[in-house]
Amino acid sequence: MKRLSTADAGFEAAFIALLAEARETAESVDAVVAAIIADIRARGDAALCEYTARFDRMEVAPASLRITAAEIDAAVAAIPAELNAALDLAAERIEKFHRAQLPQDLRLEDVPGITLGMRWTPLDAVGIYVPGGKAAYPSSVLMNAIPARAAGVSRIAMCVPTPGGVLNPLVLAAARRAGVTEIYRVGGAQAVAALAWGTASIAPVDRIVGPGNAYVAEAKRQVFGRVGIDSIAGPSEVVIIADASNDPRHVAVDLLAQAEHDEAAQSILITDSPDFATAVAAAVARELPTLPRAAIAGASWRDHGAIIIVRDFAEAAALADRLAPEHLQLMVPEPEALFARIRHAGAAFLGRFCPEAIGDYVAGPNHVLPTGRSARFASGLSVYDFLKRTTWVAQDQAGMARIGAAAVALAEAEGLHAHGRSVALRLT
Amino acid sequence: MKRLSTADAGFEAAFIALLAEARETAESVDAVVAAIIADIRARGDAALCEYTARFDRMEVAPASLRITAAEIDAAVAAIPAELNAALDLAAERIEKFHRAQLPQDLRLEDVPGITLGMRWTPLDAVGIYVPGGKAAYPSSVLMNAIPARAAGVSRIAMCVPTPGGVLNPLVLAAARRAGVTEIYRVGGAQAVAALAWGTASIAPVDRIVGPGNAYVAEAKRQVFGRVGIDSIAGPSEVVIIADASNDPRHVAVDLLAQAEHDEAAQSILITDSPDFATAVAAAVARELPTLPRAAIAGASWRDHGAIIIVRDFAEAAALADRLAPEHLQLMVPEPEALFARIRHAGAAFLGRFCPEAIGDYVAGPNHVLPTGRSARFASGLSVYDFLKRTTWVAQDQAGMARIGAAAVALAEAEGLHAHGRSVALRLT
Repeated sequence: MKRLSTADAGFEAAFIALLAEARETAESVDAVVAAIIADIRARGDAALCEYTARFDRMEVAPASLRITAAEIDAAVAAIPAELNAALDLAAERIEKFHRAQLPQDLRLEDVPGITLGMRWTPLDAVGIYVPGGKAAYPSSVLMNAIPARAAGVSRIAMCVPTPGGVLNPLVLAAARRAGVTEIYRVGGAQAVAALAWGTASIAPVDRIVGPGNAYVAEAKRQVFGRVGIDSIAGPSEVVIIADASNDPRHVAVDLLAQAEHDEAAQSILITDSPDFATAVAAAVARELPTLPRAAIAGASWRDHGAIIIVRDFAEAAALADRLAPEHLQLMVPEPEALFARIRHAGAAFLGRFCPEAIGDYVAGPNHVLPTGRSARFASGLSVYDFLKRTTWVAQDQAGMARIGAAAVALAEAEGLHAHGRSVALRLT
Repeated sequence: MKRLSTADAGFEAAFIALLAEARETAESVDAVVAAIIADIRARGDAALCEYTARFDRMEVAPASLRITAAEIDAAVAAIPAELNAALDLAAERIEKFHRAQLPQDLRLEDVPGITLGMRWTPLDAVGIYVPGGKAAYPSSVLMNAIPARAAGVSRIAMCVPTPGGVLNPLVLAAARRAGVTEIYRVGGAQAVAALAWGTASIAPVDRIVGPGNAYVAEAKRQVFGRVGIDSIAGPSEVVIIADASNDPRHVAVDLLAQAEHDEAAQSILITDSPDFATAVAAAVARELPTLPRAAIAGASWRDHGAIIIVRDFAEAAALADRLAPEHLQLMVPEPEALFARIRHAGAAFLGRFCPEAIGDYVAGPNHVLPTGRSARFASGLSVYDFLKRTTWVAQDQAGMARIGAAAVALAEAEGLHAHGRSVALRLT
């Protein structure tokens, strides 16, 4: 963990180094992934089953690629009531928030003879990738699928690897609760290729979302254009702005909640109190050994954690904007006022009783968020990812008479004569 | 030009072949572009000036990379009054339409103790790439820059190559009219690298938009993540659905207006009248030789043009959805009713007096649109490209008491113990 202070002479250089820190090492898997995609395109289900046998140690026939309703029923029945209730609460709240995002069509009565508009329509079909093994998070299934359903997508196909044939009951329950319409027991680049290009068993989709390993990420890059994809997420991060009136232990555990995701995760505290900074650092040291994921959280905090001491919260806001964090917690007396001064963050959590973890599960807004300073230009997953816009112009002869001459002048200036003529013909 | 009919036995196979037709040949320039980007990062302005000397045959000092206000003044003064008026009309109408797109913030008073919201903010800085030479279209400058200004972006930096030092007055005038804040006489991958990483003369931006050649497109791909980019546009296309009551010459010229863009452009007519189809084909043959760009338009029509005869407009709507065209003209008696039955198109033009060319220049909606069937999942350029969302949760102790237990249950089920504890600590 680095401790910096804006009052130090070397602060600016140290902060720039923090901003520039690369927390990811890119594995080069381009050629392997390209070969897998080409094979799925050429041989379809046969290739898909072969890769599944090889990578997931599981023999499966094409007819069994899809997980059956009976398998999902059995999984759901095995889940403790308390967890089912928690999934329900999460799903309801996520759905309510995402439905509230739904935009309105636009219709502009312009000058007489011209009407302009913009129409939103859902995508026809979406693919959701869910990683297998330990990283198969039911909360992520909800966060990826519910916005698609709220947008009105009628077909939501999910792919999840089931290494050794083992199903994850909570993931299946979350998929059913979220409105996923079909689930396939395939993963990796082969699953992405199948979703993008289709096989006899898996019909192609229009957009693929969801996290995955380096192979999945590269496969999404390679099928981009054929289908839409979401952004490739990097390691997660949180910036907490907190004053000395907070319980240092709360802040410490919040920092560790971020750090336990991944050794490459980053947790940063910004505070105006050097004593509070010291107290939080001490609380982190006390809490860390008690965590099941202490090794991961410890490595993240040691290598990427930081505490920055500022003179005041105006300085804190400016630093937060330069960090443009995925998650921003504002544990200060007037969090809304401070939030209004910060322009760049994926998601913000206002108040002392609002840790990021509440947003990871049940608050309602999405937990798929822009990482690595990309909140400067990108946004979290939303219904907008599953809608597209068609703009339209309705124009009659009177409308053409009003604006046609300008179009002809510009078309001629650009040397596009047929453009000009297609307008001019309607002006006579 | 292909002539197909849905009544023919071989129609489905022929239509699938039309859908699958690759109209682009990708040039592999990855390594060259990677080297240029690395060089700009390492040597900044010095490298930028060297590449400009080499590729644009133009010696320029770093201090002269930016085009001066005096140069822009001189360019604007040289433009004929009629063209200036046309630029003004176009800019006003584009601005009005894009301002109407501006979304509202969301604030959801949830259960007592929890408020949820979503806030839209503009990007800080945007880069607009404008190709040099013949493809330097002032209309594209308006279409790329005005949505950024309407979104509230305060810094709009434009790069345009000026081979041999020659400025394009209309492009400069359009940039000034659109609110571009700085213009640099650089192009190619080096310009994209400078906008993404910054040099001493060009401050970095957060997102880069605008068309370019294969080097520019690859450079945008390589800087993606560091900055946002728009989608990489392919060759342009139009689908016109028209009945026999139209003037065949109007439809023919509309088809050619699309075809004159590029040999790889595609123009498709769908009609319910075989006689009208024949009349349009004849009108295309008559109009084509009179066009200055006859060679380009002729090649496009010959290689990629198509006329499809359908039994009725329900069939036409279904085919249009499968084509998901960039541009869709509906020249039928009730165009709004037909539009309501078609889900996928970048932009629609309704009525006999509403050719696509009116939308290319002055109608108001954007002319930067999804190509190559990507309207299934993508949308045209808009203010949304220059805004990002921050979701937020404000929660007090009472709110935490309502939903915290569910978050703890889900966090424990996912094995994220610190997540659970950061919530549980606030429940006691």
